[in-house]
Amino acid sequence: MQPKMTLIEMHSFFEQVFPQVKDKFEVLDLQPMAATVRMHVDEADLRPGGTISGPAMFALADVAFYIATLAMIGPKALTVTTSCNINFMRKPEPGDLLAKARILKLGRSLSVGDVELFSDGSDKPVAHASLTYSIPPK
Amino acid sequence: MQPKMTLIEMHSFFEQVFPQVKDKFEVLDLQPMAATVRMHVDEADLRPGGTISGPAMFALADVAFYIATLAMIGPKALTVTTSCNINFMRKPEPGDLLAKARILKLGRSLSVGDVELFSDGSDKPVAHASLTYSIPPK
Amino acid sequence: MQPKMTLIEMHSFFEQVFPQVKDKFEVLDLQPMAATVRMHVDEADLRPGGTISGPAMFALADVAFYIATLAMIGPKALTVTTSCNINFMRKPEPGDLLAKARILKLGRSLSVGDVELFSDGSDKPVAHASLTYSIPPK
Amino acid sequence: MQPKMTLIEMHSFFEQVFPQVKDKFEVLDLQPMAATVRMHVDEADLRPGGTISGPAMFALADVAFYIATLAMIGPKALTVTTSCNINFMRKPEPGDLLAKARILKLGRSLSVGDVELFSDGSDKPVAHASLTYSIPPK
Repeated sequence: MQPKMTLIEMHSFFEQVFPQVKDKFEVLDLQPMAATVRMHVDEADLRPGGTISGPAMFALADVAFYIATLAMIGPKALTVTTSCNINFMRKPEPGDLLAKARILKLGRSLSVGDVELFSDGSDKPVAHASLTYSIPPK
Repeated sequence: MQPKMTLIEMHSFFEQVFPQVKDKFEVLDLQPMAATVRMHVDEADLRPGGTISGPAMFALADVAFYIATLAMIGPKALTVTTSCNINFMRKPEPGDLLAKARILKLGRSLSVGDVELFSDGSDKPVAHASLTYSIPPK
Repeated sequence: MQPKMTLIEMHSFFEQVFPQVKDKFEVLDLQPMAATVRMHVDEADLRPGGTISGPAMFALADVAFYIATLAMIGPKALTVTTSCNINFMRKPEPGDLLAKARILKLGRSLSVGDVELFSDGSDKPVAHASLTYSIPPK
Repeated sequence: MQPKMTLIEMHSFFEQVFPQVKDKFEVLDLQPMAATVRMHVDEADLRPGGTISGPAMFALADVAFYIATLAMIGPKALTVTTSCNINFMRKPEPGDLLAKARILKLGRSLSVGDVELFSDGSDKPVAHASLTYSIPPK
């Protein structure tokens, strides 16, 4: 099953619907049931000790899984998170974060999967999230 | 077991350590093993359909449990989230959100508990989160 | 909103539908949006060091939330768990376990809530679980 | 980093320490930071509608991650689950279940990772679990 949206269509959709965060997140790749997203980390994301805040990492996991799902079902902005479980495993390096999202089950009303977060240039995950999104009826 | 920090000490600590979010969150109450925190919701927290974004609700749950924990152990800024499971249950009303955090287990190295989020003035939770924080060694 | 099933109706339903575990679990109390269930702990539930196995505690949390939900919606055996997050917090005492389940959101298609597990006679939770059940359409 | 235990050593350890479940679970493969385990499904694991019970699937996820962890750290029976998040995604086929566990972070005191469960012969996961195990100090 191929994505219904191209990278260019996704960028365009994202700019329209989430103007407040369009410069924060960059969709790097869309594959069947998968997406890769970069988060530009800035001062507001940092916490004491130089680490990236939990909410910033949650936001990246959330948006990456949203994008992986939308790419498969088409642009339905009202698709919403119903649950997320996130484990923080390592202190991120200074710099941007990358998220690799994969869908494990795409049903009519739910999309279920997980996301790994990496510091740019590292292959050791800093966090791992499991997410469920609710897909609005047609 | 009584909290080690008063509401005034907590406000002062929070302003020093988290200047970037000190106007966003307001600690309303500290009790043994529990805290109540308000989040001032603004335009940047909203999403299509008028709902409050998942990351904003995660941020509130995270900070409320952090505050409940710090109140009990004293001001250790490097206390960090190790895991969070959050279920989004209802669309929040327009307006601020309140978080009620309770600690279920306070050990030497871990604090474990949960947080319920409410729209201001409602008693039906919009989200429920379970969190684990890692406490730095002395 | 009152439960649709009495304690006696629940016992009768449970014996019919789950004959393989009817002697393992005992429903002690049904309240609006809440249930209390006892698990009789035996040798097969124990693990090295004398602790109760994770799967046994999961089973108790799962069945307690199932019962709290069924009591509210009536006997729909095909109601199934869609997700569970469980944190193990303390080593249980030898002896039975009690579960206190509460429903936080009862919708048409989902029941969401949490369960605290206690060693019989103690008020310190040994585990805390958040669960979501899917309710079959009418 | 290579496993510290061979498949034969793991079988022998498992028989000694978990005699009550040694015929239930079969370790099929050990790799660096990964393990594959089969669960023999029998009548006691089934629920109304012919599905496999949630606790049985939890038990398989739990044991598979335990084995993946022990293989890397050596036979420390007192390694215990501290948290598990499990999403049930599809109704399993009749027959055995396979679990593929991977470790995402192996620290001195914690092992964090996830497990996918499959019906034997299918490549669509029926459930996905994220687990954290606590490793006892030396």
